[in-house]
Amino acid sequence: MENTYAAAGVDVLKAEAFVGRLKKLSRRPGHERLWAGAGGYASVVPISEFQAVALTTDGVGTKLLLASELDKLDTIGIDLVAMCANDLICVGAKPLSFLDYYATSKLVDHYADDIIKGIAIGCDQAGMLLVGGETAEVPDLYQDKHFDLAGFSMGLVSKNELITGDDIEPGDLVIGVASSGVHSNGFSLARKVVPKSKWESLLTPTLIYVKPVVELFGKPGIKLKGIAHITGGGWRNLFRLKTGIGFAINNPLPEPEIYTELRKHVAQEELFKTFNMGMGLSIIVKKENAAVVIETFTNHNFQAQLVGQVTDQSGKLSVDCKDSSMIISN
Amino acid sequence: MENTYAAAGVDVLKAEAFVGRLKKLSRRPGHERLWAGAGGYASVVPISEFQAVALTTDGVGTKLLLASELDKLDTIGIDLVAMCANDLICVGAKPLSFLDYYATSKLVDHYADDIIKGIAIGCDQAGMLLVGGETAEVPDLYQDKHFDLAGFSMGLVSKNELITGDDIEPGDLVIGVASSGVHSNGFSLARKVVPKSKWESLLTPTLIYVKPVVELFGKPGIKLKGIAHITGGGWRNLFRLKTGIGFAINNPLPEPEIYTELRKHVAQEELFKTFNMGMGLSIIVKKENAAVVIETFTNHNFQAQLVGQVTDQSGKLSVDCKDSSMIISN
Repeated sequence: MENTYAAAGVDVLKAEAFVGRLKKLSRRPGHERLWAGAGGYASVVPISEFQAVALTTDGVGTKLLLASELDKLDTIGIDLVAMCANDLICVGAKPLSFLDYYATSKLVDHYADDIIKGIAIGCDQAGMLLVGGETAEVPDLYQDKHFDLAGFSMGLVSKNELITGDDIEPGDLVIGVASSGVHSNGFSLARKVVPKSKWESLLTPTLIYVKPVVELFGKPGIKLKGIAHITGGGWRNLFRLKTGIGFAINNPLPEPEIYTELRKHVAQEELFKTFNMGMGLSIIVKKENAAVVIETFTNHNFQAQLVGQVTDQSGKLSVDCKDSSMIISN
Repeated sequence: MENTYAAAGVDVLKAEAFVGRLKKLSRRPGHERLWAGAGGYASVVPISEFQAVALTTDGVGTKLLLASELDKLDTIGIDLVAMCANDLICVGAKPLSFLDYYATSKLVDHYADDIIKGIAIGCDQAGMLLVGGETAEVPDLYQDKHFDLAGFSMGLVSKNELITGDDIEPGDLVIGVASSGVHSNGFSLARKVVPKSKWESLLTPTLIYVKPVVELFGKPGIKLKGIAHITGGGWRNLFRLKTGIGFAINNPLPEPEIYTELRKHVAQEELFKTFNMGMGLSIIVKKENAAVVIETFTNHNFQAQLVGQVTDQSGKLSVDCKDSSMIISN
């Protein structure tokens, strides 16, 4: 059996088809009034002519199962907040509030406390308040130590701060911000191929990019034309920002050590279509803004660098990595 | 083994203790700026001096397992929306947007479509738009047909519309609005004691009370002093509205047929502390407002009636039901 994400039990194309049907099934008058944020990373609900509430929801997938297996539950909450908050900033919203849904077969105090402590730390890193949540004991749905977590985050964005992606153009620069590892995506594949002795490093919490990005929102003269949170689908996330363009990445960030292991088992193209490959966030700016963006991330102790540029090669992403280069198509 | 909610695997007191610890663990500067809505049914985040965003999250508990077991998934989404939207109105908020988190081991098209159709119908009933969601394939977390659902809803409330419960006083009237059955609470107990031949009636979807309540928000001269969504904890939900008061319910609504079955197996006090017993929503008003409230619900095809009044018997709720009466303590 090949080592692909689909073979690991997650059929991305089928899921995308379902999301298409879902949109059709749920479409109603009123949907046309929603604002369109770049990449659809958040739902943007206008509450006046000038201001909107941005909303995201996400989970952490099968990273949960590794955390349970290793009895290490104090950082999975950071992942949960990260997945929601990093999506909010992609549309230009400032994250404000977080709610969690925590369901388990039987509430075990020290597990529950560890999970909540992680969520609280994540909220601190994202500058959000944990304002509510639901803790559900659902006997017989989850097995022994298993549980599920969903997060819900809310932020505000004003009309003139909304990131639409519309003004991205060939020649714009792509700034990459380093990830801490695989973050919270691709675990159905990762836990299949990575030996259990190295699982602990898979659990490294997802980085939360909110603070430098929100600082950049407020800087005069700086415009972030597009922000891609590199989640499920890997570098294909860049294509979400605008149609009709492409990307040439010739100076990728170094890959965290876990990727040395993953490269032993999974083909390179599959890796870039599933994982972040060292780049947790990508930011598109015009040339003149690049230095300030990199400097701001550096000041917040993130590694950031110019990784490439936007091209006119519609739907094509070229990567020069290590000793090879390749093209990823949308 | 006795037929109580605790014996069925859900320890409400333990869960409440956890929520207490959770609040302590997550408490941060900024929490004091949140507005306090009656009963804590929703988190109310001010975005200006005059306006706030209200947020709720909830699931449908083990009602999911019955729906899976009976292969009837087209109404569980209504329950999900109901649990969130009915909570929002309790603080005076007008529901606007809904997001769902749907996690399953393996996406099966017709199950997924049925679930989403239910959510869309629920959103229509609540006057909300389904603006986003997360569909997660989490292999190995859920068994065969199992899945979990969490809902997140957002509404708006202005400062002068916020329901705080502060002005509730002895002598105020309690209006009860009929439920359709057990709604979405107490299923861990219900599915244990109700024979499988009658499970279909347990699945009757939760009523969504949004439209008449929002209409009442806008009526001049009408003030809803308190609204209790009767969920987990049954009639003890009334105590959430204000401390230092009690309730005398002498004219309860008729109990839907399913309760005839439940009464065979579960002691009466346990029933009232676990289920809604025919009253899905309770509204506290001053005497002069009662008729308009009842009329508005009736116009929307809900059964509503004067069921009792607020007393000065702190933490005591007396119920005259059928051939007996009893006191429920907070």
